[in-house]
Amino acid sequence: MTVRSDEGMWLLNDPPREQLKTKYGFELTDAWLERAMKASVRFNSGGSGGFVSAEGLIVTNHHIAADAIQKLSKPGLDLYREGFLAKTRADELPCPDLELNVLQSIKDVTARVNAEVKPEQSPAEAAAARRAVMGEIEKESLAKTGLRSDVVTLYQGGAYHLYRYKKYFDVRLVFAPEASAAGFGGDVDNFEYPRHGLDVAFFRAYENGAPAKPSHFFRWSKTGPVENDLVFVTGHPGTTNRLETLAKLLHRRDVTLPYTLSRLRSLEAAIGQYAEHGPEERRQAATDLHRVANARKAFSGQLQGLLDPSIIAAKDLQERKLLDTTMVERNVFPTAPSPRNFWSTIETIQTTYRGFEREHALLETGHAFFSELFTIARHTVRLAEELPKPSAQRLREYRDSNLESLKLQLYSPAPLAPALERVKLQTSLTFLAETLGGGHPIVVKVLAGKNPAARAQELVAGTTLFDVAERKNLVEGGKTAVDASKDAMVLLAKAIDAEAREFRKRFEEQVEEPERQAYAEIAKIRFKSFGRSVAPDATFTLRLAFGTVRGYEVDGAKLPFHTTLGGAFEKSEALANREPFDLPKRWRDGKTKLDLATPYNFASTADTIGGNSGSPVLNRAGELVGINFDRNRHGLVRNFVYTEVQARHVSVHCRAVLETLAKLYAADAIVTELTGAN
Amino acid sequence: MTVRSDEGMWLLNDPPREQLKTKYGFELTDAWLERAMKASVRFNSGGSGGFVSAEGLIVTNHHIAADAIQKLSKPGLDLYREGFLAKTRADELPCPDLELNVLQSIKDVTARVNAEVKPEQSPAEAAAARRAVMGEIEKESLAKTGLRSDVVTLYQGGAYHLYRYKKYFDVRLVFAPEASAAGFGGDVDNFEYPRHGLDVAFFRAYENGAPAKPSHFFRWSKTGPVENDLVFVTGHPGTTNRLETLAKLLHRRDVTLPYTLSRLRSLEAAIGQYAEHGPEERRQAATDLHRVANARKAFSGQLQGLLDPSIIAAKDLQERKLLDTTMVERNVFPTAPSPRNFWSTIETIQTTYRGFEREHALLETGHAFFSELFTIARHTVRLAEELPKPSAQRLREYRDSNLESLKLQLYSPAPLAPALERVKLQTSLTFLAETLGGGHPIVVKVLAGKNPAARAQELVAGTTLFDVAERKNLVEGGKTAVDASKDAMVLLAKAIDAEAREFRKRFEEQVEEPERQAYAEIAKIRFKSFGRSVAPDATFTLRLAFGTVRGYEVDGAKLPFHTTLGGAFEKSEALANREPFDLPKRWRDGKTKLDLATPYNFASTADTIGGNSGSPVLNRAGELVGINFDRNRHGLVRNFVYTEVQARHVSVHCRAVLETLAKLYAADAIVTELTGAN
Repeated sequence: MTVRSDEGMWLLNDPPREQLKTKYGFELTDAWLERAMKASVRFNSGGSGGFVSAEGLIVTNHHIAADAIQKLSKPGLDLYREGFLAKTRADELPCPDLELNVLQSIKDVTARVNAEVKPEQSPAEAAAARRAVMGEIEKESLAKTGLRSDVVTLYQGGAYHLYRYKKYFDVRLVFAPEASAAGFGGDVDNFEYPRHGLDVAFFRAYENGAPAKPSHFFRWSKTGPVENDLVFVTGHPGTTNRLETLAKLLHRRDVTLPYTLSRLRSLEAAIGQYAEHGPEERRQAATDLHRVANARKAFSGQLQGLLDPSIIAAKDLQERKLLDTTMVERNVFPTAPSPRNFWSTIETIQTTYRGFEREHALLETGHAFFSELFTIARHTVRLAEELPKPSAQRLREYRDSNLESLKLQLYSPAPLAPALERVKLQTSLTFLAETLGGGHPIVVKVLAGKNPAARAQELVAGTTLFDVAERKNLVEGGKTAVDASKDAMVLLAKAIDAEAREFRKRFEEQVEEPERQAYAEIAKIRFKSFGRSVAPDATFTLRLAFGTVRGYEVDGAKLPFHTTLGGAFEKSEALANREPFDLPKRWRDGKTKLDLATPYNFASTADTIGGNSGSPVLNRAGELVGINFDRNRHGLVRNFVYTEVQARHVSVHCRAVLETLAKLYAADAIVTELTGAN
Repeated sequence: MTVRSDEGMWLLNDPPREQLKTKYGFELTDAWLERAMKASVRFNSGGSGGFVSAEGLIVTNHHIAADAIQKLSKPGLDLYREGFLAKTRADELPCPDLELNVLQSIKDVTARVNAEVKPEQSPAEAAAARRAVMGEIEKESLAKTGLRSDVVTLYQGGAYHLYRYKKYFDVRLVFAPEASAAGFGGDVDNFEYPRHGLDVAFFRAYENGAPAKPSHFFRWSKTGPVENDLVFVTGHPGTTNRLETLAKLLHRRDVTLPYTLSRLRSLEAAIGQYAEHGPEERRQAATDLHRVANARKAFSGQLQGLLDPSIIAAKDLQERKLLDTTMVERNVFPTAPSPRNFWSTIETIQTTYRGFEREHALLETGHAFFSELFTIARHTVRLAEELPKPSAQRLREYRDSNLESLKLQLYSPAPLAPALERVKLQTSLTFLAETLGGGHPIVVKVLAGKNPAARAQELVAGTTLFDVAERKNLVEGGKTAVDASKDAMVLLAKAIDAEAREFRKRFEEQVEEPERQAYAEIAKIRFKSFGRSVAPDATFTLRLAFGTVRGYEVDGAKLPFHTTLGGAFEKSEALANREPFDLPKRWRDGKTKLDLATPYNFASTADTIGGNSGSPVLNRAGELVGINFDRNRHGLVRNFVYTEVQARHVSVHCRAVLETLAKLYAADAIVTELTGAN
């Protein structure tokens, strides 16, 4: 057997035992796996984390915590920029709308889901049947276990698994460093290596008003990894596209990605300019700006990947090989449908999709209305429509098992800045008009006789949805209240709801469902050839990855496997401590207290993607040796292909956290809690 | 006669004598006009200025001077950021490639140009005939006068005038303030009011190694304007679109502007990120970044204007009225061709144009290759092709009368930064692929088997065109040298030249020439109805505008007609002297020396647009009272309609220049030269 690469974001119910044994001589035990599952945490705001004490302490990235930190800030109190440390447990700050999920079990329900989809059904019927049975499974599970229950689509439709999570709604901020320490190097260093970032934050989960007692947690390593160590990453990779067909990838390259990049750049320019107005605007815009810039850089890397002819050629070859194998086999069973059909079906679907993809994204996904207020308004309008229906027949986000999470967001008391909402809305309304043209009926309807700037102003001035009580009134008042509402944002959401739903329907019936059916067949072919040795694409569910701690070479220069705290000072000083390479005063003043040789960030080959931010990085003993926070730019093509030639994920070293907590932040209580030291 | 608005960028050979007399009781004399013409200066890098002393001293904007200032800087010497003052004339810094033009005369050549275009000619023949006769006129004029001679197309083809300019190639930098004083408020305050910018710079023109003695110059006013004063602006507005048909404007709204904005945003994100790497990268990128951000903001304002239904309705009404009048008249002469045809011809042309506009812009205009090196490479390739032809048959930019200016740019010793060239090229190559799709034959050809990042690296590493001597070798070696060249950038320019020329041909024959012919007919109709009371659209040629110095109201707040030096300190201090609201140390240290009540920037209703930057603002006596540098955001729709309700242009007040030169910059020699004081 040849030594395989470290590729794979593995399912916890189908772990890579063989590979680990063969390549690393490591025995993956059930106990190890159970701890990995039950100590790993999903941040529903879009990241990962892990329990690191018996008293509910959780570590994640600062940039994953940013949304919560921002919502705990207000004019004159900028916790994002200034950082935060709870002196005592009583000082820990309850987050207004943060939900954490911890996976408890996984069950394969593929047979039950597929049994409801019959060959004689139209795509519309099949989509409805599938949605219904998934809803039923979730509802039954919720009733039976009380756990959050999600049916997850794997292998693009090749398998369906039921994931059950314990939920935490009472989550409190314990520690966050200054943004300039966490995000040292800003957009410049994002997706680069070597790095020097303290991209960590600590929360504590509470239950019934007391610190949670998780069944499992990761012990904090005092030494951390050295070069060539085997490490594991347990986190929630968001999306990969490795099992998509070439036709789908070319569609992404030529249609979806250019649209997405154009959209992100328009937001980045507008929000960036807003932030320049002064410190308060900057505070308000910080997380939006980081999110948009980060996405722009990630998608730019994806586009470079798909524009690389060698990657396209490799995909093409892979596909033709799989097809060849199958065609040979088919000669033995010539009555089966030609496997080539499944690929050409997906190709045809892209042509269909191209005809309304932008309208679907703008109206239904909501790219035309990049505004919290609009999102809230739409939920009030749709809840009034959906709640009277049986759960299984609703739009999927309004199913019973999701309502608690939805309402946490909807009724969040986090303040919204009117001026920022206006800028975001103006920018996205303008993007709508740019994309479809000023004379398009949808644009004319949305703009209602004004230009985007005036329309955004009118909408933000004409809504009362800043007030949580108003939101509750509308939701609790149901259809009557919504129909009677004169709120400008609600009126807009109502005005375009029929069109938006129509695009969603077309998407589900003409794209999603036929793609699932074709991919399910392709998955069968792949399973036949490779068994389960290919992991499914990422789905923002818990996965296990593994790799080797290792530096790499670029243009002849050898980059070390880790950087040091001293390196951060060197870089900052060489660049005159100027943004984005400025270190906080606390760091500059405290430099002499630090052991500057302490390892700071390190690189490994394990297979990660966006969503893995904040993932625990573990050693063989299952101790936490780092917190994953980024990939380098060579890793940006991982959406499509895995490589370990130069691609690395980057983590904060466990020792750097202890060193800075103790010597710069006087956070001795956390250090003690992590290390059990006295 | 009703009192007319202050609309109009008037031709100096067709000035608004009547309007000025009626509305302002001002007699525009020939002497006043001659000084206005011969003391006004065009910066061929894209702006305006004026002679302000008998010894060739010229004032313009800092942001117009920026290109030259940047080219005089180098690693470790950042004149853009730090500012510059020549202590003596010997210290004045010769600019490597700055050309200034001063208009000497205008001659109407419409009849001669149109005489060559015959009804029986195809558009291709007509375009060639027109290009040929324009070339002949210019060549004759150059031979006869030695002056730069340009035939200018006015009224979109309704008239042709010959402009003759005195050229200055030896231009030296005398004074520039720090970028943070000149561009105080940065992108945030750009196109806004109230403003606080010292957006001025001084150059001196030289002839035969000695300061030039211009025939005319503007005296520097010691008092400046007060509210309600009549002022004039003499400058070179670049482009307006007020006489374009509605169909053309809708095409701009739905096709051209979205494309342009998407392109600019991609460059802004990439160059902005490059600049963040450190002080040297920031220095290199400063002018590109300012130019791109400024254009993005200007075009965004244009788009908001065209998305305003009231502006579209007004344009529509205007057009229908003009047509109605003509149709009524036509009933008297029913055999003439229906005037409606001219409008529908232009509409049809837009549909044609849409079919290849992006390809034309990317390949021929060069949006796919945003790189100085590529521009140089293309010139070497095309000069080899074009120079052997008679001047009148060449591509227009290679006509004899333009070669001196072209070579000034081509052989400029200004240094080019390889890393910045690479980033710009990568970004524009990526934009090419985003726009046309990765599989488009042009994209495949241009990328030559690499992704845009790798291709840009290969091209920049594989060219020797950084070296001026190499450029001269290629140009002087002609076709033989170019054919033998292995330079990567030259090979690229050659590889796509046939396609690029083909798109240019299609543009000239299918868009430009038929539009000219239709607009010429529309211009006749307009002249019949309104005479010459409507000025032609801007063409980066000298125009005279006039207006009233006046504040305005926004949302009930009354904005004063001028700001003060003290206001700059107040704003900066309120925003913690943080970029882009940081004042230079010299200002902070020198605050107490200043009369803080000195007027700083002022607003007027005169009709300006991009290209007017640096324009002298004059009083009735023809004295310089200000230097125009911006419009407010209400003025961004001026490309399409003039309004004076809130729209204003903004100028640096003459007194603020004297006050700061004397008290902050110790530039007493300049003050003396400007005021004649001892």
